[in-house]
Amino acid sequence: MLNKNTKILIIGLGLIGGSYADALSDKGYTVGAIDTDQSAIEYAKRRGIIADGRTFADGEFIRSFSLIVFCLYPSAMKEWIKTNQRYFAPDALLTDVCGVKRATVYSVQDILRPDLEFIGAHPMGGREVSGVRHADKNIFKGANYIVVPTRKNAQHAVDTCRALAETIGFRHIATLSPETHDEMIGFLSQLTHCIAVALMACKDSAKLVDYTGDSFRDLTRIAMINENLWCELFYENKDELIAQMNLFSAEFEEIKRCIETDDFQTMKQIMRVAADRRRLFDKTEEEERSEKR
Amino acid sequence: MLNKNTKILIIGLGLIGGSYADALSDKGYTVGAIDTDQSAIEYAKRRGIIADGRTFADGEFIRSFSLIVFCLYPSAMKEWIKTNQRYFAPDALLTDVCGVKRATVYSVQDILRPDLEFIGAHPMGGREVSGVRHADKNIFKGANYIVVPTRKNAQHAVDTCRALAETIGFRHIATLSPETHDEMIGFLSQLTHCIAVALMACKDSAKLVDYTGDSFRDLTRIAMINENLWCELFYENKDELIAQMNLFSAEFEEIKRCIETDDFQTMKQIMRVAADRRRLFDKTEEEERSEKR
Repeated sequence: MLNKNTKILIIGLGLIGGSYADALSDKGYTVGAIDTDQSAIEYAKRRGIIADGRTFADGEFIRSFSLIVFCLYPSAMKEWIKTNQRYFAPDALLTDVCGVKRATVYSVQDILRPDLEFIGAHPMGGREVSGVRHADKNIFKGANYIVVPTRKNAQHAVDTCRALAETIGFRHIATLSPETHDEMIGFLSQLTHCIAVALMACKDSAKLVDYTGDSFRDLTRIAMINENLWCELFYENKDELIAQMNLFSAEFEEIKRCIETDDFQTMKQIMRVAADRRRLFDKTEEEERSEKR
Repeated sequence: MLNKNTKILIIGLGLIGGSYADALSDKGYTVGAIDTDQSAIEYAKRRGIIADGRTFADGEFIRSFSLIVFCLYPSAMKEWIKTNQRYFAPDALLTDVCGVKRATVYSVQDILRPDLEFIGAHPMGGREVSGVRHADKNIFKGANYIVVPTRKNAQHAVDTCRALAETIGFRHIATLSPETHDEMIGFLSQLTHCIAVALMACKDSAKLVDYTGDSFRDLTRIAMINENLWCELFYENKDELIAQMNLFSAEFEEIKRCIETDDFQTMKQIMRVAADRRRLFDKTEEEERSEKR
């Protein structure tokens, strides 16, 4: 389990890695980091976000940590582990922050040194900005965190992962299988990003800026997307994302059919289902707020 | 033009009508209302939202007002004017709040008594609640207002309509033709409501509530829709809405094709266009905020 002597290494010191480091250092943990960007390491040391850092896979440095958190893109993480896992301390525990899990968890577990353990996790938070200079220990306050264990994971790894999330300040910590996680994230996050991107890309809206209300802005905020990261996430979750896109398309086309054919009886039925389901989200939000009081 | 002696009659005392009345009474105007719901009239009188009201088309009462604001659904407004326009004072000015303009402005102007003038307007604000009990003079603070004149309107009517919007507290007042208005609203408002409804209706998401972040909630808030009003608005703007839905569908399908065929070069290009366009909205928001300072 996590205790104050656990030394934590962040690999990849961007917005997420930097914010993890900031929150953990703030709670009194010794946090190190590896990032190829020298200026990111120096910035983080100067600000007290990390105790020490390296710009390369320094074996002696890496061996001094017992908990490793990968904050890299999925492909970069898999490559890094393959190349450098010989440096990890015996019995080190590895975890990550990737937004897709089947494509990361199974392939890392398959190639991992037998004495090491990798447990997948997904912090569901972020910002429309990137880089350690935007790191902030508070960005995960109120956010959800998902632990994604497989049959290869021991209970103590799940417990450590949950403890890590609690320490960082996540509001709600859940456990899902890689399959359920990827379906859920395909719908709630990847599909919604595709919708926002399609809505902004389908029409030149510059002359409409003066007429937009909050709802259009709310709906499209996530269109300010990091294209390299998201293309990788879409690629790694392709089958589930396509399945969710097809679900949405079919419903959208049915709504179009209703409008085209004046079938307002069906249209109203769809609207009632949508409104009822959406209300459930506010209800749960309300309940959580009153629990906190 | 609007002056403190202008007596204003609100026809339809729901959320919008009630909020108009509240703002105008607050500014010292004499505001009357007609609504078939006796309890709505009584509530509004008790709260000082209106000075007086009727539950039926009382000729003597109606004749005492020179500015009439229809806050009814499009079909109800057209019907009301056809049946009761004989009661209006000579030279009274009529305006409205309907979310579709070609289907309302032209047909009202076509049947109107020659001494009366009707000028269309669209306040772009509202809430996910309805009824005069939610009326609030502040709901239009920061919202947009669009005056929709035709060749049949005189400049003084446009000026009065703008003055009304300024008095109520709208942030930005624009002028558009009925055609441009309906295209714009088809894209910015009606299409986005169809998207939110489709997203909520396409999958049973109850078990996903615990995993949603703010972006899914933001994207779907408008799915809590008033089905009778919105079906009428969709019906009255059918051609433009279908055109905007087709634009969106084509882009969404192109994104799906990119993901299915691993065409990430095109995908990134679409993402860059979307992000650049979306940033423009925040930029304008920033500029307006700094203008206010």
